[in-house]
Amino acid sequence: MSTITATAPTVSLQRFQEIRARTEKICAPLEAEDTVVQPIIDVSPPKWHMAHTTWFFETFVLQPHLPGYKLFHANYGFLFNSYYNTVGNRVQRDARSTLTRPPLRDIYAYRQHVDEHISQLLQQLDDDKAAAIMPLLELGLQHEQQHQELLITDIKYILSTNPLVPAYQAAPTKAPHTTAVAAEFLEVPGGIYSIGHQGSGFSFDNEQGVHEVLLQDVQVMNRLVTNGEYLAFIQDGGYTDFRHWLDEGLALIKAAGLKAPLYWLEQDGEWQRFSMHGLEPLDPHQPVCHLSFYEANAYATWAGKRLLTEFEWEAASQLYAPSKGNFMESELLEPAAATPGASGLQQLYGDVWEWTYSAYHPYPGFSKAPGALGEYNGKFMLNQMVLRGGSCATPQSHIRTTYRNFFHPDKRWQYNGIRLAY
Amino acid sequence: MSTITATAPTVSLQRFQEIRARTEKICAPLEAEDTVVQPIIDVSPPKWHMAHTTWFFETFVLQPHLPGYKLFHANYGFLFNSYYNTVGNRVQRDARSTLTRPPLRDIYAYRQHVDEHISQLLQQLDDDKAAAIMPLLELGLQHEQQHQELLITDIKYILSTNPLVPAYQAAPTKAPHTTAVAAEFLEVPGGIYSIGHQGSGFSFDNEQGVHEVLLQDVQVMNRLVTNGEYLAFIQDGGYTDFRHWLDEGLALIKAAGLKAPLYWLEQDGEWQRFSMHGLEPLDPHQPVCHLSFYEANAYATWAGKRLLTEFEWEAASQLYAPSKGNFMESELLEPAAATPGASGLQQLYGDVWEWTYSAYHPYPGFSKAPGALGEYNGKFMLNQMVLRGGSCATPQSHIRTTYRNFFHPDKRWQYNGIRLAY
Amino acid sequence: MSTITATAPTVSLQRFQEIRARTEKICAPLEAEDTVVQPIIDVSPPKWHMAHTTWFFETFVLQPHLPGYKLFHANYGFLFNSYYNTVGNRVQRDARSTLTRPPLRDIYAYRQHVDEHISQLLQQLDDDKAAAIMPLLELGLQHEQQHQELLITDIKYILSTNPLVPAYQAAPTKAPHTTAVAAEFLEVPGGIYSIGHQGSGFSFDNEQGVHEVLLQDVQVMNRLVTNGEYLAFIQDGGYTDFRHWLDEGLALIKAAGLKAPLYWLEQDGEWQRFSMHGLEPLDPHQPVCHLSFYEANAYATWAGKRLLTEFEWEAASQLYAPSKGNFMESELLEPAAATPGASGLQQLYGDVWEWTYSAYHPYPGFSKAPGALGEYNGKFMLNQMVLRGGSCATPQSHIRTTYRNFFHPDKRWQYNGIRLAY
Amino acid sequence: MSTITATAPTVSLQRFQEIRARTEKICAPLEAEDTVVQPIIDVSPPKWHMAHTTWFFETFVLQPHLPGYKLFHANYGFLFNSYYNTVGNRVQRDARSTLTRPPLRDIYAYRQHVDEHISQLLQQLDDDKAAAIMPLLELGLQHEQQHQELLITDIKYILSTNPLVPAYQAAPTKAPHTTAVAAEFLEVPGGIYSIGHQGSGFSFDNEQGVHEVLLQDVQVMNRLVTNGEYLAFIQDGGYTDFRHWLDEGLALIKAAGLKAPLYWLEQDGEWQRFSMHGLEPLDPHQPVCHLSFYEANAYATWAGKRLLTEFEWEAASQLYAPSKGNFMESELLEPAAATPGASGLQQLYGDVWEWTYSAYHPYPGFSKAPGALGEYNGKFMLNQMVLRGGSCATPQSHIRTTYRNFFHPDKRWQYNGIRLAY
Repeated sequence: MSTITATAPTVSLQRFQEIRARTEKICAPLEAEDTVVQPIIDVSPPKWHMAHTTWFFETFVLQPHLPGYKLFHANYGFLFNSYYNTVGNRVQRDARSTLTRPPLRDIYAYRQHVDEHISQLLQQLDDDKAAAIMPLLELGLQHEQQHQELLITDIKYILSTNPLVPAYQAAPTKAPHTTAVAAEFLEVPGGIYSIGHQGSGFSFDNEQGVHEVLLQDVQVMNRLVTNGEYLAFIQDGGYTDFRHWLDEGLALIKAAGLKAPLYWLEQDGEWQRFSMHGLEPLDPHQPVCHLSFYEANAYATWAGKRLLTEFEWEAASQLYAPSKGNFMESELLEPAAATPGASGLQQLYGDVWEWTYSAYHPYPGFSKAPGALGEYNGKFMLNQMVLRGGSCATPQSHIRTTYRNFFHPDKRWQYNGIRLAY
Repeated sequence: MSTITATAPTVSLQRFQEIRARTEKICAPLEAEDTVVQPIIDVSPPKWHMAHTTWFFETFVLQPHLPGYKLFHANYGFLFNSYYNTVGNRVQRDARSTLTRPPLRDIYAYRQHVDEHISQLLQQLDDDKAAAIMPLLELGLQHEQQHQELLITDIKYILSTNPLVPAYQAAPTKAPHTTAVAAEFLEVPGGIYSIGHQGSGFSFDNEQGVHEVLLQDVQVMNRLVTNGEYLAFIQDGGYTDFRHWLDEGLALIKAAGLKAPLYWLEQDGEWQRFSMHGLEPLDPHQPVCHLSFYEANAYATWAGKRLLTEFEWEAASQLYAPSKGNFMESELLEPAAATPGASGLQQLYGDVWEWTYSAYHPYPGFSKAPGALGEYNGKFMLNQMVLRGGSCATPQSHIRTTYRNFFHPDKRWQYNGIRLAY
Repeated sequence: MSTITATAPTVSLQRFQEIRARTEKICAPLEAEDTVVQPIIDVSPPKWHMAHTTWFFETFVLQPHLPGYKLFHANYGFLFNSYYNTVGNRVQRDARSTLTRPPLRDIYAYRQHVDEHISQLLQQLDDDKAAAIMPLLELGLQHEQQHQELLITDIKYILSTNPLVPAYQAAPTKAPHTTAVAAEFLEVPGGIYSIGHQGSGFSFDNEQGVHEVLLQDVQVMNRLVTNGEYLAFIQDGGYTDFRHWLDEGLALIKAAGLKAPLYWLEQDGEWQRFSMHGLEPLDPHQPVCHLSFYEANAYATWAGKRLLTEFEWEAASQLYAPSKGNFMESELLEPAAATPGASGLQQLYGDVWEWTYSAYHPYPGFSKAPGALGEYNGKFMLNQMVLRGGSCATPQSHIRTTYRNFFHPDKRWQYNGIRLAY
Repeated sequence: MSTITATAPTVSLQRFQEIRARTEKICAPLEAEDTVVQPIIDVSPPKWHMAHTTWFFETFVLQPHLPGYKLFHANYGFLFNSYYNTVGNRVQRDARSTLTRPPLRDIYAYRQHVDEHISQLLQQLDDDKAAAIMPLLELGLQHEQQHQELLITDIKYILSTNPLVPAYQAAPTKAPHTTAVAAEFLEVPGGIYSIGHQGSGFSFDNEQGVHEVLLQDVQVMNRLVTNGEYLAFIQDGGYTDFRHWLDEGLALIKAAGLKAPLYWLEQDGEWQRFSMHGLEPLDPHQPVCHLSFYEANAYATWAGKRLLTEFEWEAASQLYAPSKGNFMESELLEPAAATPGASGLQQLYGDVWEWTYSAYHPYPGFSKAPGALGEYNGKFMLNQMVLRGGSCATPQSHIRTTYRNFFHPDKRWQYNGIRLAY
């Protein structure tokens, strides 16, 4: 039977508190008004994220497992359920900006209330209870970490739509590396690879079902594609030459008038980019990101290369020990240029999620868990593409080699980028 | 030449301050989060209303007339212009919820800054300057009063979309009259009537151009149509019998699935209504409101009567001294039942705007003022219907016999209701 | 009581046959394939027009009044009802192109079948029956004439969407007048005018209810606005200067990218126009047509003038004997230039329908006839503007001084044009 | 290098003429009016299919290879190009119903003109020329066969939207088998399978790139899922139980109000189905078809099974010799019930295309051919699902084991059905 977590982990109170505190740290620079809007359906109000992750612990941990627990508010289940049909009715996804009430301070109170009861629960745990609760608690923390990344990308989008283009945080005083690193290609030899999660650590159901896959030889680029390389594609007429594009991608960029990645801005021949530090000149050595799959694939076609499959990526990751990644914890919140002189595959983890040419489908033997948690992943397994490796907005402890992220191919507001292969 | 104001009025500092303070009083019960959302395009964020009315004074009074005046913020012109093409680019009307910044406290500071400079300007005024400034100041206050009404209707709508259906204010401790008043019809005799504004008081350009109109005899209902009467229409199958409806109205209610006025809610055969006091049982003697023109006209057709024209309404208003009205200042913010035993035409002013069967077109001789203020009214003179008499959300000093309000016939979020004639 | 026809007319078999034959003559140049498509919702398939006018006679004349009449086909009532809710369900207006069957030849057979039975009915008529039937027959013929005009405008639109831009008919061998006629303005003096239909001839219910209207002095242009005059408006930047436009008109031309009237085409600085004779160079003296109300009104504003009201138009028509008009019977099917040296108001009838600044509302005392025929006009009395005078596609015997045509202000596919006043 | 065809085939004049004649036979029962409409964007007008397949031969064979060939009509390239950007501008896909001209008889003349010149070309062929032309001619015929299937599905859809629900052809006098065949599951053992086309016959570029794939053991159902089995799913509440559905599928059926496959009609508890023979009672043993992928997958989930991947299907097809299939040539044009007593996997070919849970992606090593023919398949390789095995509308000579058909998961108008596995 497939389960969300392979084994029963142990969640310490300290780790619980650290992860919960991080969410609030992410939201600290915001105005209350920033936390309520939903400029596009993909972007949820930050207030909603903060409440929804709390609702998750209340619904799946406290309600069933803490005797005598009283709901913080009778209606919050309706307000802050995301997509669990099993759990009942809910505010429609596109109506989350109707939630001007409860105000932000109530959400903080809600968080505190739930955190205190989780703390109380953890202090009275016997082994039997721990076996039941720990997997749920672990899932709740993994879920919270996913929403930390979404909080960052959603805040970035919300700020970008404001005509005042406010910065989320000041730019780092010491600028990141901006030296060119030559593109090289390293071989991942063909053969049978074991794909999917094994071992005792946490994993999601969608990466379980270890199975063997037969691969051909593939040459994989040593670093991510950069802004400068992508700009060359643009300047070569890349957005107007149909030969590079999948048909639906071409229709999309025509209909929407797209001419560059999200957050790029050209004025009088100068390119700028909206970042978490406000509008900045384009850094040519920074990895390109905020691209759709269509743009990533068009770039690869133009470059005479292709994207990896998710299996090739996982095989490459098994062969090449990754360099240290640029994750959320660096608090840069933007991808960083590759390091000159480094060997192996750089930037495999962190910086940007790498679009693969693999549809997000079930692994062999996949089956949904019974009940609400079975809705976590399985029902989304169509029309989306797998991304691998995490980004500069991903918590470091959240990512692993077998991790499968997934988005529709037109989505651009995540930190998604490109690695080439052939 | 048509001008916005017929003569140069004198605006006292006290009146200026009272009207400006009223706007802030209206917003006092709100959370910051309430002030930023735009659930439908018609409903502007309260924060935007507060800033836009302030921008009006800054742009049309302080900038041209206060030497050395410095803008509060260089971008606010772009952010808070509503629809004046003459003045330049602006945030699109449907993107007002992107303005999470500036935060609410900055808007209050903006209001204070402008108010202080208006105060300063008023204290150094010679006669020549007064002649130039007073009409603009008067227009600014009239404009602020219009937005006070919009603030009330928009706040009501915003709260109504919240799943928690919060009340704006507590219900009055003493309940309003709820005794039935019999419907009677009073004659307005045919003949030539003088229509349009004359005299020295303020008026808008759209009500100027006094002209004679020839009317036939008409019988006018002594009070507004009530919730109870409208409920009878619903219960008689009014929403499904095509014979009562204009063709486009029928298409609209079918497409939107409408079965009752806005804010009405039926559960298990009991009717409730969302009001500024939260959800309440339907009061049968309260005037029905939050109706489209289509619903008002369908009701009239069902009742074997018709709506008045705006000229008939104005003639009736000339003949029958109005009873004291239920305006914004009563702070009830909902229409009140008619008074038993009163004579003449009741509820002609206040309570609800009365839909007329008159298109909002220019009066003979109408011409737009040059410059930005010529955009105030003239460019909207198509596809909208005239409403007369003000509502429970209208400031009492803002309304008069010749006042022409106008909305598209499908709009329901204003306090719009029905008076019959034949 | 209002009725569709004021008195009982006598319809001769010859007139019936002539009008019915004209419909088929209009369709004679078409391919069967032309008769089935509906490129926009406004444009009905010609086959549908031919069947619907026939259904009208079958439903309202033969079924109730010819004993023993058998329906041509049990389903045609469902297929060819236009908008009469009273008569029952029907094919939705936007789905008329689903009617590939019955094929065109069946529609001709249907027409012949109904015509033969009408002929049979007319030959066995006693006086009582005639009194009941003649008004319906007359209405049926007036209705058929309305659809003749629609057939012409719809055929023009259908052909225009074809990439081959086929001509409906050859251009006339002798070119029409193309000499400039100077614009002059003739006075219609103010006073009380009697508006609406009286007398024994046919009229629609919407023009009945004779009533007096008080008008001011008005100066009326002696001819229609020409292509050349309108081109000057375009070349003066008319489509990009917001000051000329009603707000909704401006939004419309921006959203749709409109830069000229329908059927105008600019290539390399040369203007052409699609006509019933195919693509032709723009004739500067031909009346401009295929304009929206917004364009007509913007032109008038740019020219420092205005459009007439429908009452002014009718008063002008009472004072100035119209010159002979260019109607459908001339078979030119395009408006013709004004005649040099003519006196009075030219082109008042025929050539193009003249947009008025009058909403299409009920006249005082208007009431719908009971039953299906009451749906003919009344339910459309909102959001549409009145046009007067008929066009080059209007049958001459169909038009009169009091005739009220009506369309939404954005509609351009009719032969609608401009006369100025001030 | 990838090419459309692996080797140079020899196309005989007889085969060319037979395939071209079949297209016209398919269209013979149509009225001219049937051939011009496009009720949904997926469904092209039959006239367009007939012209487009002819344009293919003219553009890719006659123009480059028949010296002195004159185009039948200068504009037909613009009118009848489908999606080849390389070849130039074209009528937009959603505007094909504007092509009322050229009339059907001109399209027949066009076909005859091109056929005669192909015949002429084939009779003067030397070996060098044959090597260049034969692959194009073969591709043209394969393309024509694809459009034969589309003609059938599009005609079915067009007739189904007509309120008269006309039959395409009379029902066969001898009814097909309607005896129940028990569901059994046959094993396809795990191991390495060679996937993709090899050998000298024709194949498309999307099935080339033979490669080895590692499969697990899988149990495959011996026949297709039937109407009766699918009805049990419906009657068990299958369309309202979210647990069976992919999230986007659930949203789709809710938004569109879907409650059964396309062409199913329930009246008073009795199920009927629109077929090429008109409305018929539902046959419980006929394979279910006209389903979306979402419906197929929901059924499989409800049944506790799953769909095959395309690799499993191809492996199964290598192991089990297919029974004779029900293809276009049987002229039944509806799927037929399984044969009692047959062994192996029945209905693997013909009857209905089988949805697989494989995204339509490039095989390893896939590369687009240069020029226009490279646009044939490659640019569609996203967001679509692979279907295998052909249907009752597929020409028998067109299908093979490695053939990859592909449609978006929401498409229902093709003959698409279900085979289960576990």
